[in-house]
Amino acid sequence: MSGDKAPLEMLKGAAEAAGEYEHEMMFIGDIDTITSIAAHENININLPNIKLVQSNGVITMDDMPLSVVRDKKESSMGLGLRMLADGQGDAFVSAGNTGALHAGSTLVVRRIKGVPKSAIATILPYKNPTMLLDSGANVEIDANTYLHFAHMGSIYMKKMFGIEKPRVGLVNIGSERAKGTKTVVAAYELLEAAENINFVGNVEGKDLPLGGCDIAVADGFTGNIILKLTEGCGAYMMEKLKGIFYENMLTKLSAAAVKKGLKKLKTEFTASEYGGAPLLGLSKTVIKAHGGSDALAFRNAIRQSIKCVDSRMVYEIALALNADFAKAQSEPANTDNTK
Amino acid sequence: MSGDKAPLEMLKGAAEAAGEYEHEMMFIGDIDTITSIAAHENININLPNIKLVQSNGVITMDDMPLSVVRDKKESSMGLGLRMLADGQGDAFVSAGNTGALHAGSTLVVRRIKGVPKSAIATILPYKNPTMLLDSGANVEIDANTYLHFAHMGSIYMKKMFGIEKPRVGLVNIGSERAKGTKTVVAAYELLEAAENINFVGNVEGKDLPLGGCDIAVADGFTGNIILKLTEGCGAYMMEKLKGIFYENMLTKLSAAAVKKGLKKLKTEFTASEYGGAPLLGLSKTVIKAHGGSDALAFRNAIRQSIKCVDSRMVYEIALALNADFAKAQSEPANTDNTK
Repeated sequence: MSGDKAPLEMLKGAAEAAGEYEHEMMFIGDIDTITSIAAHENININLPNIKLVQSNGVITMDDMPLSVVRDKKESSMGLGLRMLADGQGDAFVSAGNTGALHAGSTLVVRRIKGVPKSAIATILPYKNPTMLLDSGANVEIDANTYLHFAHMGSIYMKKMFGIEKPRVGLVNIGSERAKGTKTVVAAYELLEAAENINFVGNVEGKDLPLGGCDIAVADGFTGNIILKLTEGCGAYMMEKLKGIFYENMLTKLSAAAVKKGLKKLKTEFTASEYGGAPLLGLSKTVIKAHGGSDALAFRNAIRQSIKCVDSRMVYEIALALNADFAKAQSEPANTDNTK
Repeated sequence: MSGDKAPLEMLKGAAEAAGEYEHEMMFIGDIDTITSIAAHENININLPNIKLVQSNGVITMDDMPLSVVRDKKESSMGLGLRMLADGQGDAFVSAGNTGALHAGSTLVVRRIKGVPKSAIATILPYKNPTMLLDSGANVEIDANTYLHFAHMGSIYMKKMFGIEKPRVGLVNIGSERAKGTKTVVAAYELLEAAENINFVGNVEGKDLPLGGCDIAVADGFTGNIILKLTEGCGAYMMEKLKGIFYENMLTKLSAAAVKKGLKKLKTEFTASEYGGAPLLGLSKTVIKAHGGSDALAFRNAIRQSIKCVDSRMVYEIALALNADFAKAQSEPANTDNTK
């Protein structure tokens, strides 16, 4: 029920996914609304693998994150997360309020045991698809959390994008190892020493769009700035291009020839080309579809959730992090995590 | 002697500035090199207001910041900063190593009394010229420093860009006042309460390029990521555009019509359209010209330094910050600056 284009586009996309896959799908929302939209828009929801579940209310963009477990716990998001936690499903997909989805997932679905932080992991449409984690859930993190994020991202990019040794970059303000805050410097050392991590060192802002790494690890404050500035730069460049093309008759004509390419470029920078953002570190699969998702984007996010479940993403992450976590505890601490 | 295109382009630009202004200019470098280049390239340095000063060595991009006051203190940058501190000049302009210039300025030229942090203040080529401070000098700052930066930026944008009430935005990950780290939340309160600051609240990454503010205050870590990511996004978009225009004969033809506009767009995103970055909070004017500056950009940076001196920038900043600083000390502290 939540998302800029909900419920119509969500319903369309989900119905398409249900037609494509045999997996059981529960559409959580107001049943009357769903059935009347389906009838009106000619969307086939009479499939054996579709089950409608009645919820009450919607988390809006203005709601506080914790409303999902408090006054709006019967909303589509609140109910869906409880059902997921209760074992009534393996994955949950939402295009709604990111803060609420993360808070609800953490409190209701809970993190993998031994994993202190979960991350919102966005895939940025740079030269190569680049996973950025954290994208805003944790404004401050300690050095160990960078390591956890690197492991989670590596497993995800390997399983979902087929990259054998995904390159992990530490978001920083210079290439030298001594750059950045104390925490970032400590994170560098941990990443460099880690097994099963293909650490390529620090990545600067200018390296990111040009394909400097497959996974960029950062605190949620920095990550969120990166995510939204990329969007803002894209929007601004498109505006500037418009100005260039609207200058005179000749430039207007030339715009026609490249219209398709420019439209594609715009889409790439305004929505997520690579489906939704997985919330990594949780004990179940939760996918945050882009707020502006249309039916296609939402169907892709559902596909993505199926692929996550089928590839046992949560299990693999638990395995990697628990092993790593156990190892870190048995070694003398060499990092400054005070903050 | 430093900068990607030094010494030729620096010499050209400086000689042009000397021809344009009556201000005395000291060209600090290797005199033999300077005179031979001038002779070879037909650059007129025989003007009454040009004085050549012999230095030894150059700070390169690989040198550690502190080399400017240690093993390379006789370099053009080291000597220039000492001359500035000694009262032999009113302003210093360099296209060299930013870290060294900031460290040297802080240690040799020194900050205004009562100003605990100086900032590298870059002007970003967004929808409106946007001053970003800090751009990388101070990776972590306390809440009070955001306020200092806001004052310094406001004075600069008013004097140099003629904006009567420049809009100050706090770089953050959401529009709500409670967003961000404890320090950022405390900075919000200080900025909101400040007199003589036109505070427009939090600005997110997506607002920056689209003209959300005239001055964006941030810690140097965040600022540096913003600065370089903007550059990276610009470079990546240009690469994508090239691909769109090279697709077929028709698109190639259309490229010709907008060539000029695109070239301009590229320049705007790769170099600084608005001259160099002032180092604010120092007791003298220091301008960091872009590393890739050509003669024109370097001449503009010199112009900018003259305008700073003529408009008594340092004095105005000292006045605003000392008054503000004195006031802050006499009031009960309401912010969390522990870190």
